[in-house]
Amino acid sequence: MQGEPQFSWPMRVYFEDTDAGGVVYYANYLKYMERARTEWLREQGYDHDMLAKNPGVVFVVRSVAADYLKPARLDDLLRVTVSIKAQTRSSVTFAQQVMRPRGAEDSELLATGEAKVVCVDVETFKPRPLPRRLGEQLKRY
Amino acid sequence: MQGEPQFSWPMRVYFEDTDAGGVVYYANYLKYMERARTEWLREQGYDHDMLAKNPGVVFVVRSVAADYLKPARLDDLLRVTVSIKAQTRSSVTFAQQVMRPRGAEDSELLATGEAKVVCVDVETFKPRPLPRRLGEQLKRY
Amino acid sequence: MQGEPQFSWPMRVYFEDTDAGGVVYYANYLKYMERARTEWLREQGYDHDMLAKNPGVVFVVRSVAADYLKPARLDDLLRVTVSIKAQTRSSVTFAQQVMRPRGAEDSELLATGEAKVVCVDVETFKPRPLPRRLGEQLKRY
Amino acid sequence: MQGEPQFSWPMRVYFEDTDAGGVVYYANYLKYMERARTEWLREQGYDHDMLAKNPGVVFVVRSVAADYLKPARLDDLLRVTVSIKAQTRSSVTFAQQVMRPRGAEDSELLATGEAKVVCVDVETFKPRPLPRRLGEQLKRY
Repeated sequence: MQGEPQFSWPMRVYFEDTDAGGVVYYANYLKYMERARTEWLREQGYDHDMLAKNPGVVFVVRSVAADYLKPARLDDLLRVTVSIKAQTRSSVTFAQQVMRPRGAEDSELLATGEAKVVCVDVETFKPRPLPRRLGEQLKRY
Repeated sequence: MQGEPQFSWPMRVYFEDTDAGGVVYYANYLKYMERARTEWLREQGYDHDMLAKNPGVVFVVRSVAADYLKPARLDDLLRVTVSIKAQTRSSVTFAQQVMRPRGAEDSELLATGEAKVVCVDVETFKPRPLPRRLGEQLKRY
Repeated sequence: MQGEPQFSWPMRVYFEDTDAGGVVYYANYLKYMERARTEWLREQGYDHDMLAKNPGVVFVVRSVAADYLKPARLDDLLRVTVSIKAQTRSSVTFAQQVMRPRGAEDSELLATGEAKVVCVDVETFKPRPLPRRLGEQLKRY
Repeated sequence: MQGEPQFSWPMRVYFEDTDAGGVVYYANYLKYMERARTEWLREQGYDHDMLAKNPGVVFVVRSVAADYLKPARLDDLLRVTVSIKAQTRSSVTFAQQVMRPRGAEDSELLATGEAKVVCVDVETFKPRPLPRRLGEQLKRY
């Protein structure tokens, strides 16, 4: 990383996200992680619609994993980070963290996760190389 | 009704359905009501895929309303009823109840709702008449 | 309104919000409307946790209704408005709109909705008067 | 296993489960897997409320993982299996499969997953031994 700030995205916990345990329902962390990946992608200059039209690809999630360390609660303002763990010709594996900031400098780590995402043809769903410019941007990370 | 038993469908409350208030999250009752409508439609001999292919229609929800009387809780086994409140050439308005059975004969009414569903062309999204056989079946209700 | 800008809150449509129809799943508009009400409440100086502790109340949704005019789609950036339609000693009825801005001045109306919310005791779930300062702030709207 | 049929639970795919890709949204497989675990637990004679009251424990998910092989679609009737992969004094790791039956004998494997669940005190959230009878039942698997 070294001076390159890691991408992160803020999100607020609403009632819809919680369960009867009084905390965020664990499957919803996968949604939080996807929101952050989507915003990261948007920052690279891409959105889903654009990719589907040209070059005609869509990203599908091939596998996910998450570890839950501390619960997030109603009204928490979280930050979800995005970094690249691995990259192949047609896939990207993201490593992500769900953080709860405490003051300006400190934050608690609530959950970590990984998602392997594959670039596939929007018609045939067969793997396709990542869009070239995106592939190059990814290598910078 | 007159001897014709009302259609209802059972559903169990899981953690995914609840919120930090310890009860079923109110927007999820709309999902319960849709599940019951879908199973009612299946009992009439239709599913979404079949309708999309022939006669090329899909049902879209135009409006919903719900009143919440008592909360449903984790592990409750509910029953959701379906009846027809109104019908036009291309729309059906369903009236529905979410019940919690108590013993064999009794049940508590937890919520009531309505949904107006419009039959539209799968390509143009313009209103289309209900499939004829379905329209006739509906009139029996 | 007269010069008093209406409260609204931005929200982005993610994959989690959509359904196989290619548009936002209709029950999820209720979540969008609640997010906007929660942020409106936060702007008045309240959050759920604070209200639960002192004065020991929680807001529960008694009824909802929504009309769907045009579909929202993946990646849309929406705005959801909040205004007060009616107020009693222990309840507030909100009127809300889901808009899709087009350029700086214009926007499409996608859905409208109402939610009646009741202030109840956090222990007994019996109706309680709205917190006094909040009740007064509401009257200004 | 040896003649002991594996536990599985049926579930239907509704619109609420799908996304704009036309298939089941990947985070929702975690919900499917939890529904099956909950029904497995019920078959052992336990539900959440009973466990919370006596012996005063609740199960929390410590980690999850899932691999997505083929997409499930609207109206599919799936079966989700539950087996025990590992067990400690206060945790159970489940291995699960999401299957789409084809005829009476055959089925397609759509997704596999694991969930590590920890038994904690309902007040302190500190790990507690599994309820004794449940621990013994688990060893039989």
